[in-house]
Amino acid sequence: MATNNRKIKIAYLGGGSRNWARTFMNDLAKEDAFTAEVYLYDIDVAAAKDNEIIANRLFNRKDVVGKHKFVVAEDLKDAVVNSDFVVISILPGTFEEMRSDVHTPEKYGIYQSVGDTTGPGGNLRALRTIPIYKTFAEAIKEYCPKAWVINYTNPMSMCVKTLYEVFPEIKAFGCCHEVFSSQSLLAYALKWDKGISIGRNDVKINVSGINHFTWITEAKYREYDLLDSYKRYSDAYYDTGIRIDAVDWRENPLVCYNRVKFDLFRRFGAMAAAGDRHLSEFCPGKWYLENPQKVAEWQFALTSVDYRVKELDERLQKTKALVNGEEEIKVGYTGEEGVHMIKAICGLGDMISNCNMPNRGQAEDLDYGAIVETNASFTADSVKPITSGKLPSNVRTLVSRVSSNQTQIVKAALKYDYETVFQCFANDPLVGGISHADAKKLYLEMIENTKAYIPHAEEYLNKNS
Amino acid sequence: MATNNRKIKIAYLGGGSRNWARTFMNDLAKEDAFTAEVYLYDIDVAAAKDNEIIANRLFNRKDVVGKHKFVVAEDLKDAVVNSDFVVISILPGTFEEMRSDVHTPEKYGIYQSVGDTTGPGGNLRALRTIPIYKTFAEAIKEYCPKAWVINYTNPMSMCVKTLYEVFPEIKAFGCCHEVFSSQSLLAYALKWDKGISIGRNDVKINVSGINHFTWITEAKYREYDLLDSYKRYSDAYYDTGIRIDAVDWRENPLVCYNRVKFDLFRRFGAMAAAGDRHLSEFCPGKWYLENPQKVAEWQFALTSVDYRVKELDERLQKTKALVNGEEEIKVGYTGEEGVHMIKAICGLGDMISNCNMPNRGQAEDLDYGAIVETNASFTADSVKPITSGKLPSNVRTLVSRVSSNQTQIVKAALKYDYETVFQCFANDPLVGGISHADAKKLYLEMIENTKAYIPHAEEYLNKNS
Amino acid sequence: MATNNRKIKIAYLGGGSRNWARTFMNDLAKEDAFTAEVYLYDIDVAAAKDNEIIANRLFNRKDVVGKHKFVVAEDLKDAVVNSDFVVISILPGTFEEMRSDVHTPEKYGIYQSVGDTTGPGGNLRALRTIPIYKTFAEAIKEYCPKAWVINYTNPMSMCVKTLYEVFPEIKAFGCCHEVFSSQSLLAYALKWDKGISIGRNDVKINVSGINHFTWITEAKYREYDLLDSYKRYSDAYYDTGIRIDAVDWRENPLVCYNRVKFDLFRRFGAMAAAGDRHLSEFCPGKWYLENPQKVAEWQFALTSVDYRVKELDERLQKTKALVNGEEEIKVGYTGEEGVHMIKAICGLGDMISNCNMPNRGQAEDLDYGAIVETNASFTADSVKPITSGKLPSNVRTLVSRVSSNQTQIVKAALKYDYETVFQCFANDPLVGGISHADAKKLYLEMIENTKAYIPHAEEYLNKNS
Amino acid sequence: MATNNRKIKIAYLGGGSRNWARTFMNDLAKEDAFTAEVYLYDIDVAAAKDNEIIANRLFNRKDVVGKHKFVVAEDLKDAVVNSDFVVISILPGTFEEMRSDVHTPEKYGIYQSVGDTTGPGGNLRALRTIPIYKTFAEAIKEYCPKAWVINYTNPMSMCVKTLYEVFPEIKAFGCCHEVFSSQSLLAYALKWDKGISIGRNDVKINVSGINHFTWITEAKYREYDLLDSYKRYSDAYYDTGIRIDAVDWRENPLVCYNRVKFDLFRRFGAMAAAGDRHLSEFCPGKWYLENPQKVAEWQFALTSVDYRVKELDERLQKTKALVNGEEEIKVGYTGEEGVHMIKAICGLGDMISNCNMPNRGQAEDLDYGAIVETNASFTADSVKPITSGKLPSNVRTLVSRVSSNQTQIVKAALKYDYETVFQCFANDPLVGGISHADAKKLYLEMIENTKAYIPHAEEYLNKNS
Repeated sequence: MATNNRKIKIAYLGGGSRNWARTFMNDLAKEDAFTAEVYLYDIDVAAAKDNEIIANRLFNRKDVVGKHKFVVAEDLKDAVVNSDFVVISILPGTFEEMRSDVHTPEKYGIYQSVGDTTGPGGNLRALRTIPIYKTFAEAIKEYCPKAWVINYTNPMSMCVKTLYEVFPEIKAFGCCHEVFSSQSLLAYALKWDKGISIGRNDVKINVSGINHFTWITEAKYREYDLLDSYKRYSDAYYDTGIRIDAVDWRENPLVCYNRVKFDLFRRFGAMAAAGDRHLSEFCPGKWYLENPQKVAEWQFALTSVDYRVKELDERLQKTKALVNGEEEIKVGYTGEEGVHMIKAICGLGDMISNCNMPNRGQAEDLDYGAIVETNASFTADSVKPITSGKLPSNVRTLVSRVSSNQTQIVKAALKYDYETVFQCFANDPLVGGISHADAKKLYLEMIENTKAYIPHAEEYLNKNS
Repeated sequence: MATNNRKIKIAYLGGGSRNWARTFMNDLAKEDAFTAEVYLYDIDVAAAKDNEIIANRLFNRKDVVGKHKFVVAEDLKDAVVNSDFVVISILPGTFEEMRSDVHTPEKYGIYQSVGDTTGPGGNLRALRTIPIYKTFAEAIKEYCPKAWVINYTNPMSMCVKTLYEVFPEIKAFGCCHEVFSSQSLLAYALKWDKGISIGRNDVKINVSGINHFTWITEAKYREYDLLDSYKRYSDAYYDTGIRIDAVDWRENPLVCYNRVKFDLFRRFGAMAAAGDRHLSEFCPGKWYLENPQKVAEWQFALTSVDYRVKELDERLQKTKALVNGEEEIKVGYTGEEGVHMIKAICGLGDMISNCNMPNRGQAEDLDYGAIVETNASFTADSVKPITSGKLPSNVRTLVSRVSSNQTQIVKAALKYDYETVFQCFANDPLVGGISHADAKKLYLEMIENTKAYIPHAEEYLNKNS
Repeated sequence: MATNNRKIKIAYLGGGSRNWARTFMNDLAKEDAFTAEVYLYDIDVAAAKDNEIIANRLFNRKDVVGKHKFVVAEDLKDAVVNSDFVVISILPGTFEEMRSDVHTPEKYGIYQSVGDTTGPGGNLRALRTIPIYKTFAEAIKEYCPKAWVINYTNPMSMCVKTLYEVFPEIKAFGCCHEVFSSQSLLAYALKWDKGISIGRNDVKINVSGINHFTWITEAKYREYDLLDSYKRYSDAYYDTGIRIDAVDWRENPLVCYNRVKFDLFRRFGAMAAAGDRHLSEFCPGKWYLENPQKVAEWQFALTSVDYRVKELDERLQKTKALVNGEEEIKVGYTGEEGVHMIKAICGLGDMISNCNMPNRGQAEDLDYGAIVETNASFTADSVKPITSGKLPSNVRTLVSRVSSNQTQIVKAALKYDYETVFQCFANDPLVGGISHADAKKLYLEMIENTKAYIPHAEEYLNKNS
Repeated sequence: MATNNRKIKIAYLGGGSRNWARTFMNDLAKEDAFTAEVYLYDIDVAAAKDNEIIANRLFNRKDVVGKHKFVVAEDLKDAVVNSDFVVISILPGTFEEMRSDVHTPEKYGIYQSVGDTTGPGGNLRALRTIPIYKTFAEAIKEYCPKAWVINYTNPMSMCVKTLYEVFPEIKAFGCCHEVFSSQSLLAYALKWDKGISIGRNDVKINVSGINHFTWITEAKYREYDLLDSYKRYSDAYYDTGIRIDAVDWRENPLVCYNRVKFDLFRRFGAMAAAGDRHLSEFCPGKWYLENPQKVAEWQFALTSVDYRVKELDERLQKTKALVNGEEEIKVGYTGEEGVHMIKAICGLGDMISNCNMPNRGQAEDLDYGAIVETNASFTADSVKPITSGKLPSNVRTLVSRVSSNQTQIVKAALKYDYETVFQCFANDPLVGGISHADAKKLYLEMIENTKAYIPHAEEYLNKNS
C-alpha cells in the first residue's frame, strides 16, 4: 500500500475565529497522515494574522507531530482556489446584531435560550448569513468545484442549504458536536443502570432530524439497548435533572441538567440529541420557554449576549497571550471530529459520524432536498448519508414544521423576498404564540436593527412603513 | 342510448338523522333519473321510523317527480347487503359527550368554535367514532364490497381514514359543503370588484388541503382571476368583515363575517375555504381563539352545546309535525351535492366537485395515504381525484401538522393505543399552547367524561391514575 | 352571467399544415362562443398563405357561424406575442429524413410501422424536433408566458418535455386522438356483447401511460363494465381480428384489425389504447414486428414513406382547389377536440379529455416529471390531470422503459450530448434486438442521413468516424 | 469496557450444505470474540449430521481458536427458537429441477449461463423457493422475531422479498460475494494503470442495483479515481478480455474474462459488479447470450447441470473424507463476510459491506420496497443501508425492468397466482426475445417439469391444458 504523506490545501473561511480555529489547530497538531496548508480568510485580517502566528508556532514545536502550515489569504479567491477542502466557521455581523436576535423578541414575551439556529433570532441571523454563503458558494463553484466543504456556522441547516441552492453539485456537509454529548449521556445512563463503563464512541446510534433538533431512535452497546437504560435513568432524574459536569447551570449558561431532554423522551419515546437550550427553541413557547422563571424550573439558562461579550473578552486575552508566546496551546482531546473527517475523505481511515446534508432518502419521512442530520459514512472522496428510517410521527411533525420553514427561508432570502420570509417567521413555533400583527412588528424591528447586513432590507422596510 | 330508469339500493347509516336525512330526501325528490330504495339504519329506531314516514309521504306527493322508497332496516347487515351506495351520517354519542368535547378544554384556556373536527374536541370525538366506523367498514367488506360509500360525519378525515384502514379496497369518499360557501364568497367579490354577477357553480377553483382546512389556490371565472378580486375585496373589508346573509353572528353562532379568512389570505396568499369557526381551530390558539373576547373581535362565535340542544328541540318539533302530516317538506335548493354525485356514479351525468379521499398523488406535498380534500371527477362507477399541485409552503406546514396527527390517531385508536393518541392530542395546534402536564390532565378528564363510548378506555384510565 | 363574445389570439406554429390546420378551421367554423385571430407561422410561407386564403374564405361563408380570422405571421415573434393560445403542429425536416427514420433500420432487421414516436425512427425524429421546440419555448417565455400551448407534433412526449425543460412554468399540453378510437372500439364491443348502442363520449374511461402507448384500465357505461364486454369480444375476434371500417388494411396502411390490441389485452388485462401500428413499436421486436410477413399475420401494414408521398400529392391537389375556390371545405365532425379544449380554457364549458403533461402525481407509478398521458379536467384557465392510479405492473415495466428513455433523450439532446442519446437508442425495445455494435452503426448512419437538421451532428460524427 | 465473551445461538437452515456451510465453519474457526451454538436444520438430516461431525472435529482442534458448537436440530422450530441469528442457504429441489431451469429454455433458443437468479430458470427456481421461505418467515415470526436473518440462497432478491412480505418486521438481509471480485478487478486495474498495489478492502466503492446486477458508480483509493484507471484498463482489454486467475474459462465454467463487464462499462459508464455469467442474463438475449458460439466469443461458458453434478460428486467424496477424519479442513481466507457481519451485529466491531435489503431510500431511483443491493453500515443490532444515489438512467431502466418483475413474482407466487407470474416471465429480458405463444409453452413445460415443488401447480396446468 502506498504510504507517502498526502499534501492538501484547506481554505478556512472565517479564519480569524478565536474558538473553533484553535480546536482545529489542536486536532491538526496530532495528525501526521497528511500535511495541510491552511489558507485563513477573514474580513478581520488582524484576527486571521493572529491565528497564522499561533498555528505556526504550534506546528513548529518538537512535541507536535502534525507539521502543517497556516497562511493568511489575501482574498476569497486566493483562499479557495484549487483547495481540497473548505472549512467555514464565521460570525455574521457583530454582537450588536446578535443582541437584537436574542433580546428584541423578549419585548413580545418570546424568550430564546440561544437564538442562533431557529426562532426569531435564528431566522434573522439567517438573513445575514445567506448572502455571505451565496458568495462562498459562487467562489467554490468557480475556483474549487471538487473541494469538500465543511460548515460549522449556525444556522447550520440554512447555511448548508444555501450552498446547495447556489451550487447544486457542491460536495458540502455540516458538522456539529451536539449529538456527541447525547451519546455521552447514554453512556452515563448505562453506567447508572448496569454498572458498565463505556466511552462515547462505543454508543452506536441511529439519528435523524435537523441540526440541533436531532433524534436518537436507536442506541446500542453490544447486546444492551441503551434507550431501555435511558428510560429508567430519565424517569429517575425526571424531576431533578442530572448534572453531568461539576458546573452549575446558574454559573455557566451553556450547561443544562437535561430535564427538557427527559421530558421530550417521555413524550415521544425517542431521545432528543442536543442541549436543552437548543431543543426548547424548536417547541411551542409554552412548553419550556414561557418565561425566565419557567426556564429556571427546567434548570437551564437563557444565554444573554452580555455573557457572550464577557466570554469574548477572555478569549481576546488568551489570544494575545498565545500570539506573544506567553502561553502555549495544550494539545488535547477536543471532542471535535473535523480533522478525522478530512482524513477519512483523504482515504486514510473510514469513519461514521452524523452530519448535515440534503435529504436524498436518508430521512425517509422528511422533505427531499431539505438539510437533514443523520449518520453518514466517510471514506475516500465520499460522504454518503446512512438511511435512518422514520421518526416517531409526532416528532416528525415538530421537525418538519421547522425544516419546511428553513428551506423556504433560504429560497426566499436568495431572492430578497422578505415577505415570504416573514410568513415563515410567523410560522415558527416560538413566534406562533403571539398574534400576527405583533409578529409583523417584531419582524420589522429586527430587520431594522440589523439592516446593515441584509441586502435590500431598506426597500422592504420602506414598503412596510 | 339506453334510457330505462336505473334501480339502486342505498344504505343510510345514521338514518334517524333529523338534519342531513331531510336534505337528502329533498334532493331525491327532484331526481327521477334513477329510483332508489333507501334502507335506514340507526340505533335510534324510532327516529329512523320517523324518517321512513316522512320520506314516503314526500315521494307519494303528486308534485314530486322522484319516486323513491325509504325502509327502516332491521340491522346493519340488512341495511348494507347488496347495496350500491352506503351513505353515512351519524352522531357518535350524545350531547353530553359533545359538551365534554367543547367545554372541558375551556378550563385550561382552550376555546373551540366547533369542536367536532380537530382540536381536543375533534380528537376525542374521533375516539368515539372510529370504533363505529370499524364496524361499518367490516360490514361493507362482507356484504357490499363494491358499493360506493359517502361519508358526511365529522371528524371527516378520520372517519374516511378508518374506512380505508379497515378495508383498503373500499370505494369511499367524504363530502362537505364548506368549500361551496367560499365559492359564493368569490362570486360576491367579483360582483363587488367588477360588477359581474355569477353563481357559485361558475366559480372554477383548484382546492387542496384537509377537510375544514381546505385552500383555494386558483379561482377563475372565464378570463377573470377571482383571487385578484378577492385580494381587493378582503383588503377593503379586512377590518370590518363582511356580512353575507342578513343574519348577525351574535344571533346565529353558525355565521361568520370572514375576518379570519381575510387574515389568512393576507398571510398566505391563498384562500382558506371553510367557515371561520372551522379555520380558526386549525391555527395556534393565540391567532384567533385566545379567549371569547378575542373571538368576538374576529366577529364570530363559539358554538355552545346549549345552542345545539336548543336547535335540536326545534328539529324535534319539526319532525313531529312532518310525521303527523301537519307540515310538509318544501322541496327546494339545498346546496348539497350528494344526490348529484350518486347520479354521476350511476353514469347518468358527469360532474366535478371536491371530496375527501386518500392521497394517491392528488395533493403533491401532503402524505401519501392521508385523507385529503381536492376536486375529483365523478363519472360511471368512478371517483378520481384531480391533481391539485402544491400548497403555499407555509400553508402546507399548518395542514400537514394536523393531517399527520389525524392519520396517527386513526391507526392508534384502532389498536386502542391511547398513549400514542395522547401524543397527537398534545401536538394539536390548540393544545400546543398549554403545558404538557396540563395536556395530560385534560386528556384524561375528557376520556373519563366519554368513556362509555371508547373501547378499553377504562384500562387506559386505570393505568394513568 | 356575462355573455359578451370573447376575443382571443392564437398563434399557429406550423401554420402551413395541409392536414391538421384544415381540421382546425373546420372545428372553428362551428364555434361562435369566442372569436379567434389566428396567426399562421411556417417556414413554408406559401403554404401558410394558402391556409390564410382557405380559412378566410371559409369564415366569410354565410352558412358558417364561427367568424374568425387567419393571418400569416411575419416571424415567430409576431406570431406568438401576446397570444392567448399557441398551437403547434410541424413536420421536422422533409420526407427524405422520414425515409431514413423509417427505412434505414430495415437493413438491420428492424421494422417500424410508423417511425415517428419511438423506436429508431422516433428517436432520430426527436433529434430534429427538440432544437425547434427549444426555439418555440424560448419565444413563448419571452412573448406570451401566460399562453396555453397545445402540441400536436410527434414524437409527442419528447416535444412536450422539451417545452417544459426549456421553460418550466409553461402551460403546455399535448393532444392526440388515438385514445378516441379505442373508446369507439369499446362501444362496438358493448353493441356486440349486449346489443346496446352508445357513442364514443358515453364510454367513461380511466387512462394512463405515455402517448401512443396509453392504457385503459377502467371503462364503464352506466352500470356496464366495458372491459368485461371487451374481454369476450377480443376473445371472439382474437384470431381473425375485427375490421371496424369498410377499409381493408392492405389498401390503407393506416388501418388495423386490432389483433395486437387483443393480444396485449390477453397478456396484461388492460386495453392498449392506440392503433396497432403504434402499439407494436413499443414492444420487443419479436412480438409483432419481427418481419413484414409476421406483421401481415397480425393484420396491419408497415407504413412506407412512399405512401406518405403519394398522400401528400393528393393533399396538394386538394389545397390548390381550395385556394382557387374550385372546391370548398365541407364543415363536419372531425373527431378532434382542440377547439373544445380552447373553449373550455376560455371558461366557456368544462370538459374532460386525455392529454399529455408532466407527471405531478397523476400517474402514480411513473416517473415524476415524465410526460404522461391521462385524463385531465379542462376549465377556465386550467388544465389539471386526473389521478389515474397504477398500471398493471407488467405494463408499467414496458411503459417506464420507453418513458425513461424519452426523458433522457430530451435532456441529452438539449446539451447536444449524442452519446447519451445513443445509450437510449440502444435501449429501445426495437433496437434491443440487435447487437450493440450494429446499433452504433445504425445510429451513426441515421444521424449522417439527417444531419442537416441536427445541431452539432457533424462534430459527433467526426468523433465516431 | 466489558470484555466477557458473548454466547449466541445461530440457526442454520439448509445446514446440510456441502459448500457454504464449510466456508462458514472455516470463518468461525478463526473467531473467538463470540461463541456460537449453531443449530443445523436440513431436510437431508444425514447431510446435516455430517456437518455436525465435521464442524465439531474442527472446533476441537488445538490450532483452532474459535470454540463453537454445531448441533443437528430436530425440526425447524427447534432450530430457530430463541435464535440470535438465522442463516439460510438451501437448494430448492434437486438437480433434475435445475436441469429444467437451465436447459429447457434452450429448445426455444434461450441460453442461460447460470439460470438461478433471473431469466426463465431463475424465475422457475423462485416458484420452488418462495413457498419454503414463507415457512421460514412464519417460523421466525413465531419463534425468534428479533433474530437477524442472513440469506445466501438464490434467487437472492426474491428470497429476501418473501421474508419481508410474510413478516414485514423481520430483520433480514442477503449476502453475496460477487461485488468483491469487482473490487479486486479494480485493484488490478490500478496496479496495471499506476503500478500501485492494493487489496480489495482498500477499494472504496459506491454500489447500487439488484443482486447479480449491481453497479459500481464510484470507486476510489485515496486520491485515485479507480473508474478512470478502469476505463483505460477495459479499453486496453476490450477485445481480448483479461484472465485474472490462471484458469481458462474453457476449463472452469465459473471463470470469465470480463469482456461483458468491459462492454457494459463502455455502454453506460458505470461498472457492472458481478461475474459476466450473471450480468449477461439481465440483458436482452441478443447482447451476449444469443447462442453458444456468441457466448464463446464473449469468452465465458454456459454452466451445464452436468458440470454441477460432477462438482457435487467431488464434494461428496470430500465430505466423506472429512467425516471419516481422513482429511481435515484447512482454515484459511474464504473471501466471505458472514462471520464478520455477525460479529459486527453483536457490537464487536463495525463494518461496511454491500447487502440486499428492501429499498427505504438507499436506491433513490428504484422502487420503494424492492430488494436492492447497496452498501450498508453494520453495527450493534443494526444494519442500515447507505444512500447510493441514482444509477445512470439507462442502467436504471435495465435494472428496474427485472426488479419490478421480481417484486411481482413474489407477491403473485405467495397467492399461487401463476398467470401473473407468467406475465413477468414473458417480460423477462431473455424471454422477451421469443413470441408470446412460445413463452407460454415454455412456461407450462417448465412448471410441468418441476411441479412437485410448486404448490397448486397441478391446478394451474389443468386450467391451461
